[in-house]
Amino acid sequence: MSGNTFGNLFAVTNFGESHGSAIGCVIDGCPPGMALSEADIQPELDRRRPGTSKFVTQRNEPDTAEILSGVYQGRTTGTPICVLIRNTDQRSKDYGDILQTFRPGHADYTYFQKYGIRDPRGGGRSSARLTAPTVAAGAVARKWLREQYGTVFRACMTQIGEVPIAFESWEHVGANPFFAPVADVTALEDYVQALRKDGDSCGARIRVVASGMPVGLGEPLFDKLDADIAWAMMGLNAVKGVEIGAGFASVAQRGTTHGDAMTPQGFVGNNAGGVLGGISTGQDLEVQIAIKPTSSILSPRTSIDTNGTPVEVVTKGRHDPCVGIRAAPIAEALLALVVMEHALRHRAQCGDVRSGLAPVPAAAPLGD
Amino acid sequence: MSGNTFGNLFAVTNFGESHGSAIGCVIDGCPPGMALSEADIQPELDRRRPGTSKFVTQRNEPDTAEILSGVYQGRTTGTPICVLIRNTDQRSKDYGDILQTFRPGHADYTYFQKYGIRDPRGGGRSSARLTAPTVAAGAVARKWLREQYGTVFRACMTQIGEVPIAFESWEHVGANPFFAPVADVTALEDYVQALRKDGDSCGARIRVVASGMPVGLGEPLFDKLDADIAWAMMGLNAVKGVEIGAGFASVAQRGTTHGDAMTPQGFVGNNAGGVLGGISTGQDLEVQIAIKPTSSILSPRTSIDTNGTPVEVVTKGRHDPCVGIRAAPIAEALLALVVMEHALRHRAQCGDVRSGLAPVPAAAPLGD
Amino acid sequence: MSGNTFGNLFAVTNFGESHGSAIGCVIDGCPPGMALSEADIQPELDRRRPGTSKFVTQRNEPDTAEILSGVYQGRTTGTPICVLIRNTDQRSKDYGDILQTFRPGHADYTYFQKYGIRDPRGGGRSSARLTAPTVAAGAVARKWLREQYGTVFRACMTQIGEVPIAFESWEHVGANPFFAPVADVTALEDYVQALRKDGDSCGARIRVVASGMPVGLGEPLFDKLDADIAWAMMGLNAVKGVEIGAGFASVAQRGTTHGDAMTPQGFVGNNAGGVLGGISTGQDLEVQIAIKPTSSILSPRTSIDTNGTPVEVVTKGRHDPCVGIRAAPIAEALLALVVMEHALRHRAQCGDVRSGLAPVPAAAPLGD
Amino acid sequence: MSGNTFGNLFAVTNFGESHGSAIGCVIDGCPPGMALSEADIQPELDRRRPGTSKFVTQRNEPDTAEILSGVYQGRTTGTPICVLIRNTDQRSKDYGDILQTFRPGHADYTYFQKYGIRDPRGGGRSSARLTAPTVAAGAVARKWLREQYGTVFRACMTQIGEVPIAFESWEHVGANPFFAPVADVTALEDYVQALRKDGDSCGARIRVVASGMPVGLGEPLFDKLDADIAWAMMGLNAVKGVEIGAGFASVAQRGTTHGDAMTPQGFVGNNAGGVLGGISTGQDLEVQIAIKPTSSILSPRTSIDTNGTPVEVVTKGRHDPCVGIRAAPIAEALLALVVMEHALRHRAQCGDVRSGLAPVPAAAPLGD
Repeated sequence: MSGNTFGNLFAVTNFGESHGSAIGCVIDGCPPGMALSEADIQPELDRRRPGTSKFVTQRNEPDTAEILSGVYQGRTTGTPICVLIRNTDQRSKDYGDILQTFRPGHADYTYFQKYGIRDPRGGGRSSARLTAPTVAAGAVARKWLREQYGTVFRACMTQIGEVPIAFESWEHVGANPFFAPVADVTALEDYVQALRKDGDSCGARIRVVASGMPVGLGEPLFDKLDADIAWAMMGLNAVKGVEIGAGFASVAQRGTTHGDAMTPQGFVGNNAGGVLGGISTGQDLEVQIAIKPTSSILSPRTSIDTNGTPVEVVTKGRHDPCVGIRAAPIAEALLALVVMEHALRHRAQCGDVRSGLAPVPAAAPLGD
Repeated sequence: MSGNTFGNLFAVTNFGESHGSAIGCVIDGCPPGMALSEADIQPELDRRRPGTSKFVTQRNEPDTAEILSGVYQGRTTGTPICVLIRNTDQRSKDYGDILQTFRPGHADYTYFQKYGIRDPRGGGRSSARLTAPTVAAGAVARKWLREQYGTVFRACMTQIGEVPIAFESWEHVGANPFFAPVADVTALEDYVQALRKDGDSCGARIRVVASGMPVGLGEPLFDKLDADIAWAMMGLNAVKGVEIGAGFASVAQRGTTHGDAMTPQGFVGNNAGGVLGGISTGQDLEVQIAIKPTSSILSPRTSIDTNGTPVEVVTKGRHDPCVGIRAAPIAEALLALVVMEHALRHRAQCGDVRSGLAPVPAAAPLGD
Repeated sequence: MSGNTFGNLFAVTNFGESHGSAIGCVIDGCPPGMALSEADIQPELDRRRPGTSKFVTQRNEPDTAEILSGVYQGRTTGTPICVLIRNTDQRSKDYGDILQTFRPGHADYTYFQKYGIRDPRGGGRSSARLTAPTVAAGAVARKWLREQYGTVFRACMTQIGEVPIAFESWEHVGANPFFAPVADVTALEDYVQALRKDGDSCGARIRVVASGMPVGLGEPLFDKLDADIAWAMMGLNAVKGVEIGAGFASVAQRGTTHGDAMTPQGFVGNNAGGVLGGISTGQDLEVQIAIKPTSSILSPRTSIDTNGTPVEVVTKGRHDPCVGIRAAPIAEALLALVVMEHALRHRAQCGDVRSGLAPVPAAAPLGD
Repeated sequence: MSGNTFGNLFAVTNFGESHGSAIGCVIDGCPPGMALSEADIQPELDRRRPGTSKFVTQRNEPDTAEILSGVYQGRTTGTPICVLIRNTDQRSKDYGDILQTFRPGHADYTYFQKYGIRDPRGGGRSSARLTAPTVAAGAVARKWLREQYGTVFRACMTQIGEVPIAFESWEHVGANPFFAPVADVTALEDYVQALRKDGDSCGARIRVVASGMPVGLGEPLFDKLDADIAWAMMGLNAVKGVEIGAGFASVAQRGTTHGDAMTPQGFVGNNAGGVLGGISTGQDLEVQIAIKPTSSILSPRTSIDTNGTPVEVVTKGRHDPCVGIRAAPIAEALLALVVMEHALRHRAQCGDVRSGLAPVPAAAPLGD
């Protein structure tokens, strides 16, 4: 139950700080015999890594993954896989100011009160940099799920600040730095550039989807598939809201509208977002998350220091103006880790169950 | 990690089915020495129980709690507290229809595919009836947290179907069957009566608040306080969305607006919803949840049966037209259980930490 | 991780006190679809229950099991199975003496110091009575393992006090109140009768065996099969030692002797006790446990009371002169629960592994 | 619950293989604010490391610990502490033989059957080399427990093969390569040299003691302190038996003898080994473990290969003739990890309990 481990059967223990010597994770419980090398992990890390466009932090980290254990002759052995990522561009500047003051909207204050001590270098443990090992672990889960079930994970930005982004095609997502499903991102570029000039930041909304889901994953009563998805997503830095399927729109829906009808040809609609009663229906998992604006900004803010004295805080340094911009690959990884855990749990308890009814096909997915 | 246990240190294991002989829970890890009797639990169960107004299911269950263990001479001993609630108004009707068909939007289908077998009586394990033991456990947590820290949990309805409900006062919440914070609930009554006539159902939005929170609760990186809140809430029957603080509104906010400024006199605003970096700030925990419309409705729906043959499903029987109506006391209990777990975890690791800085006061709470 | 739950995937949560209103357990994670009724559980409870001979406590408890949940139309549904056992022969005597003093060798003192409060009635939570729900849960595990793999669990007494018991046949075990594998138990009867007259008690040694084991169960590095067996057995009331295979005799063995040779016809010997590297070999699991003498005895003992004042303690009431006498069915249940947990864990991670080598047959089992 | 994590609140996740690039662990849950550097860990690693005498494997590993995270300016921050130990003396020899055959008494066979694949280099994951990270984690736990309670952990060899070792003094333990509590180890040297010449190996018995224990640690019903000790010790490579206090000798004891009397001046005797009812008494924890002979020996053994064909196995290479020789510091670390976990768990549930009775002093410890 340690606070830095994700999952129980596919258990990923994360370690490191933003400006420490290294970050990484230990993946315990991976099924044996799967082909695995750094080449399976690196592309996902490259999608997430900083410094790749002018719209994200300029910290230049190669985020090179090294597999230290758990693989023999190119195959997983079933023993723990340690993935190590050395930090290379941490800067040895004076953190005196940050150490003594609390950025509004940042974890500075709560870490200080909880632990009585905190590592202020680049946000220490609370930095979004710690999502890199999660992405690495997610790459392992994604590979197994793809090979086992054909499950595929995708995410895209659906809003940045006040600018909504209409879905055009998944094909565009990899072609722009915003993970936006649109061909033309000029409006997004302009918006972020203007923010930068203002010394300000903004939020974002991300859509995360798993397609090719097996039916039957999820554990009632408490460890529901959607509950664990909410846990994973809300645990991502800066996330303030999570929706499954129709989400908050379901409040104003009626039962006759919301409940997805079933026919032998498949489900009609996916208001459920792929989960009923905490268990996967086989439809796409449809998740939306809300990401708050970055709290490290150049604009001066009212705050206090560790003595309780009023101060004005200005945060210089290299920061993302919108942490949501790089969130898509991370959210995909988180969703994959949840599905992986439940795939193994399902096999444990129900490995020999056959209902006798073929899975009902999914509705045509939203926005494909 | 069993799917029917909530928490690790304050671990609540839930059992039972809607129309079985009994439901209940085992609460393991309760601190010893606290005065406890059924009288501490029953009022919370009474707030949740069915049959108390014409706007909820007419099933008439007294939901009488019996403490079987863990209490000696009126005090908790530190050993497991088993709370048993006998079912008394389950009806022995023919479940043949329900057993063979799947209600759209209901867990019927997924349970059948996962387990190959399901208890169809009143929804079996997937029934909202199983929230009663959770409310009982929550009552124990609430008592301890109130005595230890003065923490208080409250919830109210903020929208039912298409009808938004403006906050007037917490005082009204207990005075109407909707847990609505308004004096006049005529509009709500009319809305639900009309739904009933239509053989339809609707969703709801619930606000849940913890006041008097200690600072420092929550475990980064994964077991964040807000992550666990999202897990608990999304795991509640019919919930499709969870927000903390500004929630989805934070997408369109700027950093200069969102980050709650700090002064020696206290926080200015609570966009954070009481959590920064996964750790409590000491401000009120502010949570909003979206509840979907009930899937058991009289209107005929298109579906299939266990052979995959098309059928029309009409659900008779006693059902809530809006499961959100009774959700407030349940959501309070869930929030209390999350805070309780983290209070014990915090004491385990950081029981002797003293930061030297007095907790910053909370902002004046929203809607008080 | 709650201290009253056994296992993670097949998680058994135990509740109750010796003289409370009821004891019981919740079994979470049982595979669905298995035929199950009280008739599968009661015979095991009957083997363990008190009052069945003059060599055990005269407390007369029918130990009638009631299944409250998790079974529908005679089959497990995959949801939690609550088994309730009402206490019927608890006596409402004055516990004043016991409450204020500590029996040497008993949990009285440690419970008092840990919790600051304790239920003194019949030993409260520390009573061996709490093994009844464990036996009930074990019966469920045994049934599944027998149907799935043909695994069978047996235990017998191999020593009582100073009297060693040579193995004759498993057939005798059920025919005498000592669970002794011998036809003539006169010597054992005389020994215990003499003890009784002396107002004293004695220890015992129990052998526990699982036959028909699948190969490959157990999780290195820490959750080894033998480690979990040791945990389960040492957690049984009054156990002070656990051996696997050759046990302490292996200290004086040489490598050439200890390592069980392998041939295509099977293993030669079973010094390993069925476990190598923490993983089952497919040979019989061979376990020995040491049980200490009962601490509740008529002979006066030197002790202190809750104020730290010297007192003389004499324990009247109904007590087993040798708790080891009824330990055999309990130890079998514990071993079954460990194997069950690992069977599910193995299926989770390695459900599709095929090594290509048929399991090597077991050596002819010891004492068959 | 991953199989490679020790503990829940003080959770140590171990990774690596004997001849991989590195081994290590992540320690999650360490209380913040404790001074910590590699200098606190290295001395314990040095006590355990190979190549330090002619009686152990000649593999020459410096076992240099590098702390990668969780420490800032020389103090623990409460975040995960990753300790990395690079392997430096792994040899790139041909493992073809070992890969295809199974050493009798070794994990070769069970790993192969469980995972369908195994890393044969130096025993891979099943090597005793993986105890190094455990010793590192134990050093952190020991430091905290010493500072918090004054608890001290010691172990010594009490028998090697057929040679019993009488206790003289703890002072001798550090002065000879056997961790023997005697001044003159000539007999032990001769014994092991003779074994070597025979191409054979032997077992050992180790005594492990914790002094300065707080009263009240341990969680009934299942996570008893002694149960967790048995789990930890039996999980150590090659251990086949565990005793607490009087252990197997308690079988032949009577209740009047076994139960340790209590007086205001303290306990009289320690047959309990420091645990009653699964909870620490405050007396010394007294543990004995049996270690089997090394299975990697030069003498030819009968076995089979991965095709099931009979083969003769001779294990060359660098191996300990008695793995028990280096077991003392490992067993100390394991005991410390168990106590640490329970210290935090106790604080979680019972952090504010005061019984009003001062802890009863321990008996004069055995062999001091």
